[in-house]
Amino acid sequence: MSVTQPPFTSHMDAALDEASAAAARGEVPVGAVLVAPDGRVVARAGNRTRELSDPTAHAEVLAIRAACAAAGSERLPGHVLYVTLEPCPFCAAVISAARIARVVYGAADPKSGGVAQGPRIFAHPQAHHVPEVIDGIAAAEAEALLKNFFAAKR
Amino acid sequence: MSVTQPPFTSHMDAALDEASAAAARGEVPVGAVLVAPDGRVVARAGNRTRELSDPTAHAEVLAIRAACAAAGSERLPGHVLYVTLEPCPFCAAVISAARIARVVYGAADPKSGGVAQGPRIFAHPQAHHVPEVIDGIAAAEAEALLKNFFAAKR
Repeated sequence: MSVTQPPFTSHMDAALDEASAAAARGEVPVGAVLVAPDGRVVARAGNRTRELSDPTAHAEVLAIRAACAAAGSERLPGHVLYVTLEPCPFCAAVISAARIARVVYGAADPKSGGVAQGPRIFAHPQAHHVPEVIDGIAAAEAEALLKNFFAAKR
Repeated sequence: MSVTQPPFTSHMDAALDEASAAAARGEVPVGAVLVAPDGRVVARAGNRTRELSDPTAHAEVLAIRAACAAAGSERLPGHVLYVTLEPCPFCAAVISAARIARVVYGAADPKSGGVAQGPRIFAHPQAHHVPEVIDGIAAAEAEALLKNFFAAKR
């Protein structure tokens, strides 16, 4: 599905704001913003796994679930997801299930990523929908947030 | 983590009941039962993706989220998950994130599975926890439910 060219920086800035807000709550600082085909921001979220005692409460999943609930649909064709960190395997699989058209992400995640490394979720026939993937947008800022967060924990 | 040997058939029977109930609701018939280290059933669920407009509302995920919420923890060490169908990549990744000790599943899922095929979620270093996996328990019953469901849709 064709999607309009989004303004990478403003939506990624909003995702970085969500990541910062997550850090302030004691959550791993990852943020996500979901944009509809008409350009409206339909959901934004940061990690809340600790707060909600929910291992699925990653930023991407919270944004997708909120947008699906609002749309009354399991699928979000034509939508673009901005996320500050490479999605993990389960977020990548949910992105595929929800038929997200494009994923724009920031930092690579060699330890837990599931798009460009490890199980490479989109590289198998079991991924029934493969989004366009654009990586490395505001990667340095996203990485700095994560590094500062984990450094402060030590 | 060591787990007590569970009574495969009774828990899988309960999972099959959840799958049948899902079919009756018009949902893909997959069911799951989650058992605590002391043998108590702490959650059971069937698919509800359509009802909830939630692409993450697979049986396994609903059971894990309910048990995590009840336990006030993102992790369920020592727990055993019974599920009628091979977990998809997303469910497999959530099983790993939740630190489930053992997964017992029924039918294989060549089209959408993520454990024994496709991304093989547990076979990469990005899976920070690898559960014991036992497959093929009540596989024929689980498969019959799925076949009847999809045959009736045609």
